[in-house]
Amino acid sequence: MSVSDSTSSYKAVIYADPPSTKTEVVDLDIPEPDVGQVLVRLHYSGVCHTDYSFCTNGFVGAPPTMKGQIGGHEGIGEVVKLGPGVVLPAVGTRVGIKYAADACLNCEPCLLGGETSCTQVKISGFYTPGTFQQYCLTSAKYATVIPDGLPSDAAAPLMCAGITVYSALTRGGVKPGDWVLVTGAGGGLGHLGVQYARALGARVLAVDHGSKEDLCRSLGADEFVDFSQFPANEPPGESQMAARIRELTAGGVKIALMCSSNSGTYEQAVYWLRFRGTIVCVGVPDNAAVMAGSPMMFLEKELRMIGVKTANRQEAVETLALAAKGAIKTHFEVRPMGELTQIFEEMEKGMLRGRVVLDLR
Amino acid sequence: MSVSDSTSSYKAVIYADPPSTKTEVVDLDIPEPDVGQVLVRLHYSGVCHTDYSFCTNGFVGAPPTMKGQIGGHEGIGEVVKLGPGVVLPAVGTRVGIKYAADACLNCEPCLLGGETSCTQVKISGFYTPGTFQQYCLTSAKYATVIPDGLPSDAAAPLMCAGITVYSALTRGGVKPGDWVLVTGAGGGLGHLGVQYARALGARVLAVDHGSKEDLCRSLGADEFVDFSQFPANEPPGESQMAARIRELTAGGVKIALMCSSNSGTYEQAVYWLRFRGTIVCVGVPDNAAVMAGSPMMFLEKELRMIGVKTANRQEAVETLALAAKGAIKTHFEVRPMGELTQIFEEMEKGMLRGRVVLDLR
Amino acid sequence: MSVSDSTSSYKAVIYADPPSTKTEVVDLDIPEPDVGQVLVRLHYSGVCHTDYSFCTNGFVGAPPTMKGQIGGHEGIGEVVKLGPGVVLPAVGTRVGIKYAADACLNCEPCLLGGETSCTQVKISGFYTPGTFQQYCLTSAKYATVIPDGLPSDAAAPLMCAGITVYSALTRGGVKPGDWVLVTGAGGGLGHLGVQYARALGARVLAVDHGSKEDLCRSLGADEFVDFSQFPANEPPGESQMAARIRELTAGGVKIALMCSSNSGTYEQAVYWLRFRGTIVCVGVPDNAAVMAGSPMMFLEKELRMIGVKTANRQEAVETLALAAKGAIKTHFEVRPMGELTQIFEEMEKGMLRGRVVLDLR
Amino acid sequence: MSVSDSTSSYKAVIYADPPSTKTEVVDLDIPEPDVGQVLVRLHYSGVCHTDYSFCTNGFVGAPPTMKGQIGGHEGIGEVVKLGPGVVLPAVGTRVGIKYAADACLNCEPCLLGGETSCTQVKISGFYTPGTFQQYCLTSAKYATVIPDGLPSDAAAPLMCAGITVYSALTRGGVKPGDWVLVTGAGGGLGHLGVQYARALGARVLAVDHGSKEDLCRSLGADEFVDFSQFPANEPPGESQMAARIRELTAGGVKIALMCSSNSGTYEQAVYWLRFRGTIVCVGVPDNAAVMAGSPMMFLEKELRMIGVKTANRQEAVETLALAAKGAIKTHFEVRPMGELTQIFEEMEKGMLRGRVVLDLR
Repeated sequence: MSVSDSTSSYKAVIYADPPSTKTEVVDLDIPEPDVGQVLVRLHYSGVCHTDYSFCTNGFVGAPPTMKGQIGGHEGIGEVVKLGPGVVLPAVGTRVGIKYAADACLNCEPCLLGGETSCTQVKISGFYTPGTFQQYCLTSAKYATVIPDGLPSDAAAPLMCAGITVYSALTRGGVKPGDWVLVTGAGGGLGHLGVQYARALGARVLAVDHGSKEDLCRSLGADEFVDFSQFPANEPPGESQMAARIRELTAGGVKIALMCSSNSGTYEQAVYWLRFRGTIVCVGVPDNAAVMAGSPMMFLEKELRMIGVKTANRQEAVETLALAAKGAIKTHFEVRPMGELTQIFEEMEKGMLRGRVVLDLR
Repeated sequence: MSVSDSTSSYKAVIYADPPSTKTEVVDLDIPEPDVGQVLVRLHYSGVCHTDYSFCTNGFVGAPPTMKGQIGGHEGIGEVVKLGPGVVLPAVGTRVGIKYAADACLNCEPCLLGGETSCTQVKISGFYTPGTFQQYCLTSAKYATVIPDGLPSDAAAPLMCAGITVYSALTRGGVKPGDWVLVTGAGGGLGHLGVQYARALGARVLAVDHGSKEDLCRSLGADEFVDFSQFPANEPPGESQMAARIRELTAGGVKIALMCSSNSGTYEQAVYWLRFRGTIVCVGVPDNAAVMAGSPMMFLEKELRMIGVKTANRQEAVETLALAAKGAIKTHFEVRPMGELTQIFEEMEKGMLRGRVVLDLR
Repeated sequence: MSVSDSTSSYKAVIYADPPSTKTEVVDLDIPEPDVGQVLVRLHYSGVCHTDYSFCTNGFVGAPPTMKGQIGGHEGIGEVVKLGPGVVLPAVGTRVGIKYAADACLNCEPCLLGGETSCTQVKISGFYTPGTFQQYCLTSAKYATVIPDGLPSDAAAPLMCAGITVYSALTRGGVKPGDWVLVTGAGGGLGHLGVQYARALGARVLAVDHGSKEDLCRSLGADEFVDFSQFPANEPPGESQMAARIRELTAGGVKIALMCSSNSGTYEQAVYWLRFRGTIVCVGVPDNAAVMAGSPMMFLEKELRMIGVKTANRQEAVETLALAAKGAIKTHFEVRPMGELTQIFEEMEKGMLRGRVVLDLR
Repeated sequence: MSVSDSTSSYKAVIYADPPSTKTEVVDLDIPEPDVGQVLVRLHYSGVCHTDYSFCTNGFVGAPPTMKGQIGGHEGIGEVVKLGPGVVLPAVGTRVGIKYAADACLNCEPCLLGGETSCTQVKISGFYTPGTFQQYCLTSAKYATVIPDGLPSDAAAPLMCAGITVYSALTRGGVKPGDWVLVTGAGGGLGHLGVQYARALGARVLAVDHGSKEDLCRSLGADEFVDFSQFPANEPPGESQMAARIRELTAGGVKIALMCSSNSGTYEQAVYWLRFRGTIVCVGVPDNAAVMAGSPMMFLEKELRMIGVKTANRQEAVETLALAAKGAIKTHFEVRPMGELTQIFEEMEKGMLRGRVVLDLR
């Protein structure tokens, strides 16, 4: 699977036959960076559930995924060549490639620091070649420098899930001592949410199935609520689970970090909050899901709700800096490029525990 | 109706027989300020719709309103006596009395600057004697100094509606050039919302019935949308009115200041917003109203929603400062104390245009 | 002086013989925009004092100014051609060219929103061709869209002085009702500072020579202090002028917007401030000038001091939006391109009143 | 030294003969809490260098310290009685008493969250009886609740030094990954500054005498600079120490937390900073010290300088919350009340290492 840097070809994994999960390792020619681009020799790439969804045409309303698409948006590697006009990041720099591969940096969302909502954004691994390959072209402006002291394999999953939960927490305004509730706390987003909340000085109440309690507590959760111990269809306003959450936190949480895509949690969230509490929408429930909670409730307790798609470039820098201090442990296993089909199938069956990181070396 | 300052009695209007609208002017003894209090000789008090609601027992779940209650929470007058320990505001200072008459300033909401949600808050005119009287005791800490250049009668309605819309706009993060949509733009809250949005440099799209268009444009609205010109029960996601709003503002508004209590507007609001847009809940719709818009929508456009009850004390200072610069015209008529019953009846029938201010001199 | 758009040459004013003030109008070939650039047909350009300084080699330590340099960094015109890869701003859009002509948008200052301190920044009219010409290439990312309702000639001086004072005031944290002191209030920066402070709801105390009092008051200054009425070398801590400023503002100002380059004002400023007051350094005094005021003074009153070079791109958008609402009147006179030498000479002699704008049509 | 709660007298340490360091343990009658006050049974009190200064009349220009003054402003104990009107903190609550014993909460500094600069502030242990006693009256609004998990003796020094450095860092805008330089890093303020900076995700460069290097590194400093290894009177702009600091931090620090009262450090600080760097003045140098650095330097790198006196009440809550998570170790030794004179003498001679905490049980 290794590649000589003197040869002109390299290995990539392509989606061989969407919407099937079939993937294939192929040889491709090493491309030349264009104006503003850098060529990155990738070493690791995380595999996200949205990669699986995209490979299997799972996004309703999106154009069909092309045969030959290279997926992946959590890549770590080294800059090996600069395109015309590029000065930084210099050759030899270790960088990460994120969900947004490029943005115009001049439209309204870009000027407001929301580059991933750029009107001309390019997304790694979705129509644009992603990080399931040994060499990848990317915009110099978008390559995030990886700080020393953070191993490349552990850094990979941070490039998507990590930066998202970090920006969600900081935009949500978390302060030392605040209670942060994390839904889906034992999952891919959630297990990082628990740790970043703690690293920012918060107290953490983890919500997940009881089977995840040990994991959550080992990550530093102060309290744990097993949702399976409560009736499934409680009326939100009279929920015993909400009452338990308010009891454990002396009146409710300051931030509800919604990492689960279960729409039931969104219906309840407003009852978990204390004064000036904030619901931060990160996990993506069914499109049709409707928020519970009346404007009256928002007004009475001066609540807030914000949606966070993912981090901007400065937030990515801060996310990695915190991880480099040793505050964050990602749970992952490294597997060979050739196993991507099998990984997608295990994902489909819910058999994976923790993130999978592809070895691209 | 005048009172000699040398006598020991004064006039007050009481709720004579709740839940009827009957009120009565009575003579009361001038009280002595306690520790931390000041005695204020009031000159004007605005009459708010919530006064009517309280007089008529209109708040579901609240204890019955007492016979003899003195209502009102928008009073302007002069400090005439200081209680023990009080240094400021000095005798002779012109001050305003607001919705919150007192707060502990030490509980969690108070420490966060949300004093009107204090766990021990006292509300003017609700169980605590309010501003429909010539003399009123109030907490020295809660009396807001009225800046020079702002007439007392015009200042009265700012003490509730004005400070609320100002804090709603600034907490919503309005910046020069932003599009601000105001629902109920011709109403008591809305007509101030239009003006404060302009004074903060925003462009304003007013939404109301067509009969209010001239008023809204005279207040400075850049665009006007007459909701009565659109079908009543449009599915929010396919609403022609929402499409019109997005068209007039090149993609949607940055802030939707919800001054109307019509719950239909809350169902649509999420479709009015552009990237990082914010819904600010100020008007109080039916308790049962449910927000439209899925978490997915909040996430995709990184939307925000916040509830604002009313301003804190510092925000009140800023609200009045802006008005004192001549940026704000309140629409009101001054009427005698003795007409409160009739005013409530006109309110009930929707006959009032602009705020009514009681003359307490 | 006009140019047919069908021809391939156009007029530009060059520095003919630095460090003399001699300039010359020459014919040049219209250039082609490169990747990421747009070609702008300029109509007006402001003339700034730094243009004069650069033409005459006035910046100590800077490399000598080249013969043939085209100066100018306050240009307004229309996009007429897009370079490869550029989508926005579209052909036909009215845009402004600012001090910073390009930045990498990826270095540390850029990620923090301080693009004018980019490690690879290019400055219009300084080594990079500027806006004293009919056609100018510029980075698409840096061209600021000019809002409707703002005339091009009046907009030109806003592209440097206007955006600088706006960002200085907002970074300084001005709020409605705050007292803002502006030094050099009748000058190029100052007269805009007075107006932007007012447009943001502040009260303004203008400081300048008595000959500027009428101008300052006509722009909306609430108070005026004539520095020439006070002894020249007062010890800062016992200054009568500082005492007068504190008296007029009931304890001192919240923001001291330092538009004057007189170093004496910097020595006094700390004595003008009230609690949590902020000195905002905008005008550039002699390099050797030393701040007065001890850390003890900063600590006792929790003072702040910030340096503001100029605005970033989002702040420029907000600056123009406020001006487009009619809040700002720039004082300028339009003069022909061919008079630049004469304009520099009048500048040298201090004969100019208000900004000069070159007609490039 | 213990006291029976059934008796009516208790032990206090008084300044027996200012300006000598002589103190004396005396018996006093337990007082009754007035309106708005609580009576606290104190268990521990930190001894701060300002206590020594006050006892010895060390503050230039201040009125002479009275014989019989009870000093101390870092007390931890339990609420044992509520004055009229007080609901919270309830009897039995563990609370801390800070530098500010009371504030009006209504003046301009109070409304801005700067209560310790209240125009009517009362300072514990300065003219108002402080915490060197077993029973202390204090304003209910000012008593800070101590979170579980934080021992009372360790909490005492946090009530002054801890809350000050925490608020200094957060007002300075520290973000994960930022370089924070701490002067006097091995001292009372500094050793907490190093730890709080780390707990907020920053990288720390500690500056102190080489004898403190081991301590600083054990507290988590990433880099250490021994000031004694550099020439004493270097011209700030050409300082080798500044060059070394910029080298260790790849261009300078983001925050310089000035905990040392050495005025030389203030002259250099501006040369330590990177783009948008901030000097935070906390340590109190000689009144006459003058800042180095010209406005030009502030402007070029968009630097900031802020003075922080101490925390407000909300910041105190956050400070303790972070400590309760185990992030902070205070260095202290517990000594009996009767040794205060000896402690002051050791302080005078610079013999103390770490904070002294008086045992008041």
